[in-house]
Amino acid sequence: MPRYRLTIEYDGLKFCGWQRQSNAVTVQGTLEEALICFTDGQQPACHIYGSGRTDTGVHATGQVAHVDLDRPVDSFRLRAGLNALTRNRGVSILNVTPVPDTFHARFSATKRYYVYKVLNRRAPSPLYECRAWHVPVPLNWDEVHRGASLFEGLHDFSAFRSAHCSAPNPVRTVDTCFAERQANDMVYIHVQARAFLHNQVRAMVGTLMDIGRGRFTSDQILTCFETKDRASAGQTAPPYGLYFTHVFYEQFDEKDTAANEASFV
Amino acid sequence: MPRYRLTIEYDGLKFCGWQRQSNAVTVQGTLEEALICFTDGQQPACHIYGSGRTDTGVHATGQVAHVDLDRPVDSFRLRAGLNALTRNRGVSILNVTPVPDTFHARFSATKRYYVYKVLNRRAPSPLYECRAWHVPVPLNWDEVHRGASLFEGLHDFSAFRSAHCSAPNPVRTVDTCFAERQANDMVYIHVQARAFLHNQVRAMVGTLMDIGRGRFTSDQILTCFETKDRASAGQTAPPYGLYFTHVFYEQFDEKDTAANEASFV
Repeated sequence: MPRYRLTIEYDGLKFCGWQRQSNAVTVQGTLEEALICFTDGQQPACHIYGSGRTDTGVHATGQVAHVDLDRPVDSFRLRAGLNALTRNRGVSILNVTPVPDTFHARFSATKRYYVYKVLNRRAPSPLYECRAWHVPVPLNWDEVHRGASLFEGLHDFSAFRSAHCSAPNPVRTVDTCFAERQANDMVYIHVQARAFLHNQVRAMVGTLMDIGRGRFTSDQILTCFETKDRASAGQTAPPYGLYFTHVFYEQFDEKDTAANEASFV
Repeated sequence: MPRYRLTIEYDGLKFCGWQRQSNAVTVQGTLEEALICFTDGQQPACHIYGSGRTDTGVHATGQVAHVDLDRPVDSFRLRAGLNALTRNRGVSILNVTPVPDTFHARFSATKRYYVYKVLNRRAPSPLYECRAWHVPVPLNWDEVHRGASLFEGLHDFSAFRSAHCSAPNPVRTVDTCFAERQANDMVYIHVQARAFLHNQVRAMVGTLMDIGRGRFTSDQILTCFETKDRASAGQTAPPYGLYFTHVFYEQFDEKDTAANEASFV
């Protein structure tokens, strides 16, 4: 069966997360329904496999998924068809490429990249409502930067995961964690790792903001790694500031970076 | 009476434009109602004067207005009060500064700056829905750049204004007009002038996109200046891609750039 890789953008506020549910609108469910329409019902079971689940409210600009179709289709037509079928529903297929059947959106992924957006000024922003977390107090930047750097490396992230997280092993390696100020009082917090625990990025960002406000010092992160206790870390940042922006597939990169068209995507 | 200068952001989709109307929600009307509440009804007539009107759907990140109050108030308190009174209604006061009564938001303005955002790729963007105009075809960049440069200077913009425009003189001087590609397939078109005709920026942008698509060449702009006929120019770009970003007041700049607080705005 021909396999296709999809790159997907969505507005997290329009969905109850990525994962298919029988009684709620989800990204996976919406795309699988659209695929059934696309195949004219000739392929009634279309399963889309995502690189990772996102929670309700979390946005994506570069979620990756794969799907197997009964017969080969033109990538361009598949993208156009899915976008027509899901128009104005909060999701868009940015790119479709045929991939070998050794490619798996979840298991072949070697790095996942998130950006968390914070609006750091007194006044709220109507244009960034539900697009960034409004933190209306000044931040201690030295402490935020130091805190971010402490997250990097191999650690037990038990203190930074949701109570519902079922991963057997709470140890993760964070490759990258840094904060940068943008124009218009925006702060972007970049986090990259092979894999994350449930709510890990939001717990890390919430803790960084608590450190920035002076609720505790960056050393608290070291304490959290030792106590492994969620209560010793900071708040969980709201979902709508979080963007799932990239997934990397080291073994597949050359093939997968080919866009639908060379000059205009 | 003490006079205050307000810098204002708003989501244009939430309002029927800037100007007060008896039967519609507008930015000016919303702020004037909030001011009456802020003064506890002791100042029943609070008129806010904007630097310029914007149409339904047009956003602002730097609209400027002024208001006279019966008695002096702390700028910081005025901003916080107005933002609390208009919370979640699509408008935010970014800054308040006391200004001399020679300052007039409209008549003292020496330059107005707009940015028009175009999403130039095949796939739509759920995250930029109603925040940018989706132009899903490749553009001829040489022609777009040349067209933008032809708009600069003193011209009769009769072909680039709405039929409802009541300005007696259609001649305007455009100081700046250029297009730049951003990341994520966004195109920003920057336009600055002392003053604009009604729908002028949207007609200019719509024409530039028609030129980029090859509907006509950039020379058509020169023809438009001669014919003075709206029908000879391109379409009017939709309002929701347009952002009113800056107003400049040459004689007042030093005082006005002082933020509410030095280090954190």
